Amino acid sequence: MEYIFSDKVSTLKASAIREILKFTSDPEVISFSAGNPAPEAFPAEKIAEISSDLLKNDPVLALQYSVTEGYTPLRDELKKNLSLKKCFNPDIDDLVITSGAQQANELACKVLLNEGDTIICESPSFIGSLNAFRSYNVNLVGIELEDDGINLEKLEQAVKSNKNVKILYLIPNFQNPTGLTMSWEKRKAVYEMAKKYNFIILEDNPYGDLRFEGEEIPSIKTLDTDGRVIYSGTFSKILSPGFRTGYVSAPKEIIQKIVVCKQVSDVHSNIWAQVICHRFITQVDMEKHFEKLRAVYRKKCSLMISKIEECFSDKISFTRPQGGLFIWCTLPENADMPSFCKKAVSEYKIAVVPGNAFTINESDPTSSFRLNFSTPTDEQLIKGTEILGKMTREMFK
Amino acid sequence: MEYIFSDKVSTLKASAIREILKFTSDPEVISFSAGNPAPEAFPAEKIAEISSDLLKNDPVLALQYSVTEGYTPLRDELKKNLSLKKCFNPDIDDLVITSGAQQANELACKVLLNEGDTIICESPSFIGSLNAFRSYNVNLVGIELEDDGINLEKLEQAVKSNKNVKILYLIPNFQNPTGLTMSWEKRKAVYEMAKKYNFIILEDNPYGDLRFEGEEIPSIKTLDTDGRVIYSGTFSKILSPGFRTGYVSAPKEIIQKIVVCKQVSDVHSNIWAQVICHRFITQVDMEKHFEKLRAVYRKKCSLMISKIEECFSDKISFTRPQGGLFIWCTLPENADMPSFCKKAVSEYKIAVVPGNAFTINESDPTSSFRLNFSTPTDEQLIKGTEILGKMTREMFK
Repeated sequence: MEYIFSDKVSTLKASAIREILKFTSDPEVISFSAGNPAPEAFPAEKIAEISSDLLKNDPVLALQYSVTEGYTPLRDELKKNLSLKKCFNPDIDDLVITSGAQQANELACKVLLNEGDTIICESPSFIGSLNAFRSYNVNLVGIELEDDGINLEKLEQAVKSNKNVKILYLIPNFQNPTGLTMSWEKRKAVYEMAKKYNFIILEDNPYGDLRFEGEEIPSIKTLDTDGRVIYSGTFSKILSPGFRTGYVSAPKEIIQKIVVCKQVSDVHSNIWAQVICHRFITQVDMEKHFEKLRAVYRKKCSLMISKIEECFSDKISFTRPQGGLFIWCTLPENADMPSFCKKAVSEYKIAVVPGNAFTINESDPTSSFRLNFSTPTDEQLIKGTEILGKMTREMFK
Repeated sequence: MEYIFSDKVSTLKASAIREILKFTSDPEVISFSAGNPAPEAFPAEKIAEISSDLLKNDPVLALQYSVTEGYTPLRDELKKNLSLKKCFNPDIDDLVITSGAQQANELACKVLLNEGDTIICESPSFIGSLNAFRSYNVNLVGIELEDDGINLEKLEQAVKSNKNVKILYLIPNFQNPTGLTMSWEKRKAVYEMAKKYNFIILEDNPYGDLRFEGEEIPSIKTLDTDGRVIYSGTFSKILSPGFRTGYVSAPKEIIQKIVVCKQVSDVHSNIWAQVICHRFITQVDMEKHFEKLRAVYRKKCSLMISKIEECFSDKISFTRPQGGLFIWCTLPENADMPSFCKKAVSEYKIAVVPGNAFTINESDPTSSFRLNFSTPTDEQLIKGTEILGKMTREMFK
């Protein structure tokens, strides 16, 4: 038979990154295209120890159906920790466990937006969230990103000129794909704007604990006296992405709707992983654990930056992230970036992600590409950046 | 601030079963209201053994990001097993892992239906699926269920009289909530009707392996020469619902869209659980494992049935399932079923689920309620059925 798909999904495509990832199955290709945590950063032994104890002494807890909201001791612990950071206000907020922050962001869109309503994002932004929003057939508007965060004038223009602006989606810390961090001034300004124009801020903070340089900047959620910030976090970058354990802190009324939608989506998240997250964060000195992770990423990032400084053509500009997993490189204006990326992987066997994978419309002009420094080994980081550098020097003299 | 939710979810309510489940936190209440597998049926030791080996020898496999389609060895094994049952046709079908069958059913609706399109279901039917469909603001039409499955005349009328009928949703084996099984003749008839009127059948088979009596009836998917059956299955009832590991076998074009939507929903399902499912079904004699489970459920079901026969007023009719987890009881016509269920839990401390939780509209008349026999202990089964029986004899002399 011939299939007719819903309007929501008929134009939805698999992530462009997946096309690049196909090349990376070639063992000769050095991949700077992933977004995976460093494998050596997994606390695998401690996880194995907790799991073994759990499955031996509490198998029914780990194997039976659980509640949609998530494992209560984990929720309580997260509420406590987020309260200390002022990212959870017990008077107005509730918190539930989701199947990764991805599910939190997707469900925020599902519960708040009708088809055609507007969601504003940084451009470029995280492709997984952009596609989640697209899958509800909403009006996606991208706003230029500056070194200290979203362009406020263009944001206000967009809020005024688009219909039914419901959500502003932001990744304030070490943004994916650019690695940029939003300043405290801009965080305050977007919250004021949200109050003025009555929209909700969806603050996605997957990398917040991975700051390896500079001073921590408080989350936008800390400003939320008004109940208009939805804050999502995840264990993917600090424990294990394979767990698919994330969480969302938001006003109670919104959480209630997210719970109803989560119930029909996957009933609840894998409960074994939830119990392990709870036992891990209560048994382990988390500050020490974060310091270990930060040391890994600090080293990898500065290794890549130093090789970029040494080897890249000086026509290439790049960001200097203070945390997270990504560096954003920009070729000279009018350079043919897609051809550059294609040549890099097919001839030089270095995989990077073309910047238009992250723009709101794939045809938006961009001469940038994304480098990941968390997944490759140190050797691959050195060799791969040298090869890319040679390529840039040949092409952009 | 005041929140305005999307049309999709503004009228969506938490499952009515959850209201009943609140009473069940009272340790004195005997609950026949759950849908949980028997805790003693979990192969906990084998799971612990596989997990321990996996986390020791292959931690990165279990902890790192994985692919949206699911763990390839598990997909291959399921394709092989389903091919043997003619529920997977390599020429036209593909198979992906989902976060429970719940996600498979939800995504089938998301990729195929626009708001207002029609999905036809048995009435009563599984509340989780009904709510998933409702969350996309579709036109939900319920068709009377008979002892051998859906009423074919009323189904054909509904197909003719509703606009854009895209999906017929069926649970042919030991249906939730009725425990009824669709005859082979009706399976063939609905497939013919699907061809005639060009709609898709969504065949949900969570309990198929739990047949403890009678002859197996082939799935509707076995008839699918035309690529119009989406078949979903799960490890929830045969291994562990806490895993959230299910799968869907469907025409390749539909699977492609489901993968794109799954990617934006939760990226991939918990990979630890997927690897365990694969190792379990390849290391364990599954026929023996199923026989053990069937023995547990056969015993529990016949215990409850024998106590119903002994203790219930003869004004109460009930189904005699050949598998699955549920018995469906019906009070005399015009009985006040909601009051009966409320009285059962508040005065007699026996929790059952009122039948209108499963009807298409909560106001649809029904005098039935659902009993679960898989979760209670044998003692609870005996005592609880005796108490319910006494209540029925007092109320329906």
